[in-house]
Amino acid sequence: MIDFEYLDKIICSTESKILMLVIDGLGGVPDKKTGKSELDVAKIPNLDQLSKISSCGVANPVFPGVTPGSAPGHLAIFGYNPLKYLVGRGFLEATGIGINLSTTQIAVRGNFCTYEEGKVVDRRAGRISNQKCLDLVKLLNQVSVDGMKIDVYPVEGHRFVAIFDLDSSLISKISNDHLNEIDCSEIFCSIKESEDQIFTKLVNDFIGKSLQILSDEKRANGILLRGFSRGTNLPDMKNKYKLNPIGISSYPMYIGLAKLLGMKSVSVEKSLDKLVSAVEENFENHDFFFMHYKDADSKGEDGDFDGKVKSLEAFDQFVPRIMDLNFDVVVITGDHSTPAVLSAHSWHPVPLLIYNENIGGDKVQSFSEKEFLNGQIGSVDSVNIMMLSLANSGKLKKFEF
Amino acid sequence: MIDFEYLDKIICSTESKILMLVIDGLGGVPDKKTGKSELDVAKIPNLDQLSKISSCGVANPVFPGVTPGSAPGHLAIFGYNPLKYLVGRGFLEATGIGINLSTTQIAVRGNFCTYEEGKVVDRRAGRISNQKCLDLVKLLNQVSVDGMKIDVYPVEGHRFVAIFDLDSSLISKISNDHLNEIDCSEIFCSIKESEDQIFTKLVNDFIGKSLQILSDEKRANGILLRGFSRGTNLPDMKNKYKLNPIGISSYPMYIGLAKLLGMKSVSVEKSLDKLVSAVEENFENHDFFFMHYKDADSKGEDGDFDGKVKSLEAFDQFVPRIMDLNFDVVVITGDHSTPAVLSAHSWHPVPLLIYNENIGGDKVQSFSEKEFLNGQIGSVDSVNIMMLSLANSGKLKKFEF
Repeated sequence: MIDFEYLDKIICSTESKILMLVIDGLGGVPDKKTGKSELDVAKIPNLDQLSKISSCGVANPVFPGVTPGSAPGHLAIFGYNPLKYLVGRGFLEATGIGINLSTTQIAVRGNFCTYEEGKVVDRRAGRISNQKCLDLVKLLNQVSVDGMKIDVYPVEGHRFVAIFDLDSSLISKISNDHLNEIDCSEIFCSIKESEDQIFTKLVNDFIGKSLQILSDEKRANGILLRGFSRGTNLPDMKNKYKLNPIGISSYPMYIGLAKLLGMKSVSVEKSLDKLVSAVEENFENHDFFFMHYKDADSKGEDGDFDGKVKSLEAFDQFVPRIMDLNFDVVVITGDHSTPAVLSAHSWHPVPLLIYNENIGGDKVQSFSEKEFLNGQIGSVDSVNIMMLSLANSGKLKKFEF
Repeated sequence: MIDFEYLDKIICSTESKILMLVIDGLGGVPDKKTGKSELDVAKIPNLDQLSKISSCGVANPVFPGVTPGSAPGHLAIFGYNPLKYLVGRGFLEATGIGINLSTTQIAVRGNFCTYEEGKVVDRRAGRISNQKCLDLVKLLNQVSVDGMKIDVYPVEGHRFVAIFDLDSSLISKISNDHLNEIDCSEIFCSIKESEDQIFTKLVNDFIGKSLQILSDEKRANGILLRGFSRGTNLPDMKNKYKLNPIGISSYPMYIGLAKLLGMKSVSVEKSLDKLVSAVEENFENHDFFFMHYKDADSKGEDGDFDGKVKSLEAFDQFVPRIMDLNFDVVVITGDHSTPAVLSAHSWHPVPLLIYNENIGGDKVQSFSEKEFLNGQIGSVDSVNIMMLSLANSGKLKKFEF
């Protein structure tokens, strides 16, 4: 998985328009009893029809066997090697809700969780409402810790962002590697014995006081922190690809990712109609559209096979409206697989479809993991999807010297 | 083919158990007359059935077009990049029979061979018996060379190990690159003209005297040396993967390899029953099992198509007993292909099957090279097999920052 080092030499700007539809957690695996995956079961006639007239294949998100989080999964899709650009989840979430991190700040992604007898029993606190999240964040903002300023912001449902502002002598001791080593997967955070423990102690002080202030809650009586990260810069898609890109999502993290890559970003309500409407409304003014559909991933993570099937069927209904826009190139893929059978993200290759208005289809007859193995694209690393999309849209000139 | 540099961050220890079944020389190629490979011809109903409920694919051992020896082939399977860890065959054989090399020693793998009119006519001396090997090794131990102590040990059949103990001023002149350059493929050894010739002369003195002392033998009247190597350290599987691994084989080299990677090793008689019994007996105490089955490779090297078919059919009979142990993950693959048509190891991709008790199968309907090309895993480098095995067993956490 490497970058094409001569991209500068062949990239060019054209009138053609690319739509990148990311179905979060798209890929599944067969249920052992039925032998069928979510895509095998779903009634998705429009996607099936589209697959007949498109180039199909499968994409490996990060590395064989590696299960990516959403951030590395998406970075790969946009052609940013996720092993090179280690963008922290906390930073992305903060960017998504409009926070610009200063050089003394560290952002962290938080979950409210259910904590019983010293164990985390539900990592999402039963997916509490946005209003509940707002109320609980107010409580967390009452917590104070000596030596560190803390601001907590609600994100969505059980998700929040905490910003830790440290004095400059402390922040200078904390490397990115240090931040990556912090593990709060069992509520309190820990780090290798050899590391400086000061920051970890401050965070644990915050966690301890948070548990106290949440102690009357039935479900959301704990917090889980991850993705400790500071601000970072990535190459802008406008410069890298000579595109005028726009990202459309209902979730702050993906809005954050779009902003980070230099896309205009549009946050919409959680509705396929709103997502597609935003594409329609902005059609004239951009040449690259990233539309992010989350529901398939959420249902997969909940182990809700039938729910994931329904979310795919819901997406399918909007395919004709999307195709009516006459994009030159339409790409449909996922950032990773989220098989309902595993109730989690997984390492499995993700279906990849590239529709090019000038090119006919391959052997593929329906939209599924198994069927896409027969496709013309074969098996590629996700980091190559962007190159294939640009090529199909005529934005890559012949490579020669 | 690179290592995943963040393995430390995602590897975790769990209760799940992995069985890695290595069928040495598993892959074949079609016979020109019939169009069928050994696997196509073999009656292997249990492997066929298992392939229907597993994820299948093909694995490339080292590099496209490169035919691996058994050591690089196996290192790749265990996730050790064989282009990075150049472990000498002599060292492996020595480790396998329990010899720890001191810093002044060089180990070499030997074959008794048949030598007529200045030419090697049978590289394995008609596969002589273990007893014959013992007798001949006694003869070789009578050979003495000024400036070098020599100890020869029997291994198995035509195989032996010689340990050359040099004085410290000489050993310091011999680099690993120097050892890799020594070529004894036509009995006497040679090395580039530019290299120091002292060690080569001592070895040729040993070879010359060995030919004299073996001159009354009809079949085993010559020796072939290869894999000149000194001791080396590799990362331990216990640390690298947080596993408690065990290796089970009937051949010293594979026992040596298992030891070298930090596995407990169990040497058993040449019998599938004994191999499987050793897996059963140690089931409770380990979470990773490497079981090595040699016969397919031996028959392939002899150009014995029907013999290789029979060895695969013999393996197949033990599949139900193996599956009855209820491993969470069962992997079946080979270290390289050994097509009977070529009477040698080859560069061809090797079938790879991963059974995961939670996940259904892909499109594959039978266990063969051709059929596995339709599998969900696609085509991977063998060095990634270990990552896929760990992922399937739930031992790799999500990758994100």
